Amino acid sequence: MKKAALLGCGIVGGGVAAIFRDNAAYLEKSVGEPVELKYILEKRDCSGEPWANLVVGDFSVIESDPEVSVVAECIGGVGVAYDFVKRALLAGKSVVTCNKQLIAERGLELLELAERKGVFLLFEASVGGGIPLIRPLTNCLSANRIEEVCGIVNGTTNYILTQMIQCNQDFDSALADAQALGYAEADPSADVDGIDAMRKICILADLCFGSNVPPEKVPTEGIRGVHAEDAMLAERLGYAVKLLAHAKRLDGERFTAFVAPHLVAKDKLLANVGGVMNAVLVRGNAVGETLFYGAGAGRMPTASAMVADILDTMRRGNGRKFIEWGPEQPERFVHPDEVPARWFVRCSGALGGDLADACVSADGFCAAVTAPMTRAALEERLQGVAVESVFRVLD
Amino acid sequence: MKKAALLGCGIVGGGVAAIFRDNAAYLEKSVGEPVELKYILEKRDCSGEPWANLVVGDFSVIESDPEVSVVAECIGGVGVAYDFVKRALLAGKSVVTCNKQLIAERGLELLELAERKGVFLLFEASVGGGIPLIRPLTNCLSANRIEEVCGIVNGTTNYILTQMIQCNQDFDSALADAQALGYAEADPSADVDGIDAMRKICILADLCFGSNVPPEKVPTEGIRGVHAEDAMLAERLGYAVKLLAHAKRLDGERFTAFVAPHLVAKDKLLANVGGVMNAVLVRGNAVGETLFYGAGAGRMPTASAMVADILDTMRRGNGRKFIEWGPEQPERFVHPDEVPARWFVRCSGALGGDLADACVSADGFCAAVTAPMTRAALEERLQGVAVESVFRVLD
Repeated sequence: MKKAALLGCGIVGGGVAAIFRDNAAYLEKSVGEPVELKYILEKRDCSGEPWANLVVGDFSVIESDPEVSVVAECIGGVGVAYDFVKRALLAGKSVVTCNKQLIAERGLELLELAERKGVFLLFEASVGGGIPLIRPLTNCLSANRIEEVCGIVNGTTNYILTQMIQCNQDFDSALADAQALGYAEADPSADVDGIDAMRKICILADLCFGSNVPPEKVPTEGIRGVHAEDAMLAERLGYAVKLLAHAKRLDGERFTAFVAPHLVAKDKLLANVGGVMNAVLVRGNAVGETLFYGAGAGRMPTASAMVADILDTMRRGNGRKFIEWGPEQPERFVHPDEVPARWFVRCSGALGGDLADACVSADGFCAAVTAPMTRAALEERLQGVAVESVFRVLD
Repeated sequence: MKKAALLGCGIVGGGVAAIFRDNAAYLEKSVGEPVELKYILEKRDCSGEPWANLVVGDFSVIESDPEVSVVAECIGGVGVAYDFVKRALLAGKSVVTCNKQLIAERGLELLELAERKGVFLLFEASVGGGIPLIRPLTNCLSANRIEEVCGIVNGTTNYILTQMIQCNQDFDSALADAQALGYAEADPSADVDGIDAMRKICILADLCFGSNVPPEKVPTEGIRGVHAEDAMLAERLGYAVKLLAHAKRLDGERFTAFVAPHLVAKDKLLANVGGVMNAVLVRGNAVGETLFYGAGAGRMPTASAMVADILDTMRRGNGRKFIEWGPEQPERFVHPDEVPARWFVRCSGALGGDLADACVSADGFCAAVTAPMTRAALEERLQGVAVESVFRVLD
């Protein structure tokens, strides 16, 4: 009999509890012995819940119970969640989490602690919800040098951009719709300002490049600066506007990582990922391009990824979990503005010189895509132009 | 130090040898100790090859060397490959293979043998080349009941169909182009008649539904019956023609599995997978739809999947690899013709009744998509109609 404990039983935690309740026979078959959720740590009144008999209010009950081999953290943030995860690892328990902030900010320290204690810290659910991504990246593609990871990792912003493109809505009205549908929070900042996507690309970059990428180092631009005119003119040029989290190996061991709106050519799969769906493209030196697509959030997808991680810790005896994630190497990080890119430029009035021929125009604006250049070269090129928007083009 | 042996050093085997040579430091970091390719079993003269010093001609050298913990099989077929894989497992060595015929036809027996000997039999490279698929399915999605697996798993036929759609080519001319480019073999039957795809869907169905699906039970239709007119009329109706390998859970424990050309609505990602690329959609009861995309074949993608499997056997101590793949349960298998589907029908002349309104026509043909019905109901419906083509529509 293998026993787990759950910290926090809100949306995702409730999904984890439901899977343990509904799929018990199935989980047992998967692990090779019975599997039980022994405790749920929850402060609120849960007397009406089907799992009320499992609730404890004090973490030390879980921490000190040697029967609990794995703890699943669904509290969120880096306050008590950090404290409890650390104590669980110190007590020799494996930890599974969907907490991207915790992993992005404290992953290095917690992974080192897990390694020292000979237990696992798994976080498949922290990026891409239910989409298998972390394990394929660290395990299935382990014979590859990962060259690039690039994806749509925030469903809220992808929904808003899809509405702007398909219904010609402006940002404020698309955001209001997303809020009405429950796809965006009352305070939408973590989504629309790119912070959620930034935490996810930190985790992916950590894993791909093997050294810690502190969140505060990652240039992050959300979608508040994307206008209906950008979406429309991009469309005319054959592109869709997508908020991408992007990490790329450059020459030698250097790399960049950032979050920003991009134009994506419509014949690429990423351009066809609509609504709240997520998709992440991974390019390896042997495998070439692979892409992983699915629901990037939501109760059951995220819970299913957490339960798979829980089962994984239960099945593996002393197997070694390979994750190369060392200390920060600041000299490897290159600001994305220094990396040449093609740029989409929208301006009021006209674009002169070599861009004039390639322009499309509507409603008094004109737009074109430049040749590859750095941000500084672009700014020099655009002196005197009444620029409205500038976004990178994905190549 | 962990040591591996390679059986067969052709296209894929050569890629495996190259990864061991070029990425040695990287592989060592991944396993936690040095990793070596000790032997290559190859009958042909290899004196000019960089790995010539590793070549042995007699499998018993590998079989009897206790230093070799894992054997990678790249011979193909079910003749000597079957014999050597069985002997390797009996000798207590893990086996990694890209041989889909071997796994589709003998997987059950070989997995039971591996389990009995306490070693691994891994075959990530047998389906989808370098695309991580088997491990995500059996591990990352292990908290799900898999409802459906459906994908483009043969690059040759996808290339031919893409040419037919985009360039309005007929089958024979697109096949000749594919052969000229090296995407199709001189004898293209295994690809164009769907046999390769059928072996892959057998493996996926085995894993998803937990009981053996013998290849001879799986109805298999290739693309020789797809005409340029089908592609064109499908396009007008808003669909692309794709050869899909399809396995689906029906009511209760019953399921179907088959290979056939399908019409795929153009707003689905699968419709946008062009050229030689592969993509597999997996639907789980918790995660919803996920999709895995990438190069489905080729030297380095396939080799990278094999090396990842090799590293996995080396890293895992006595971890239990969970694969539920039991004996055949014939009563669970339902012929796909008994499963209601919408159908694309192309005929010369006119389609009457309720289909007349929805018809598109060109070049003396007309085509429409029916309501959902079984094949028998469709045939009754089409009595007296000069039917040219009938394909399922993916829903």
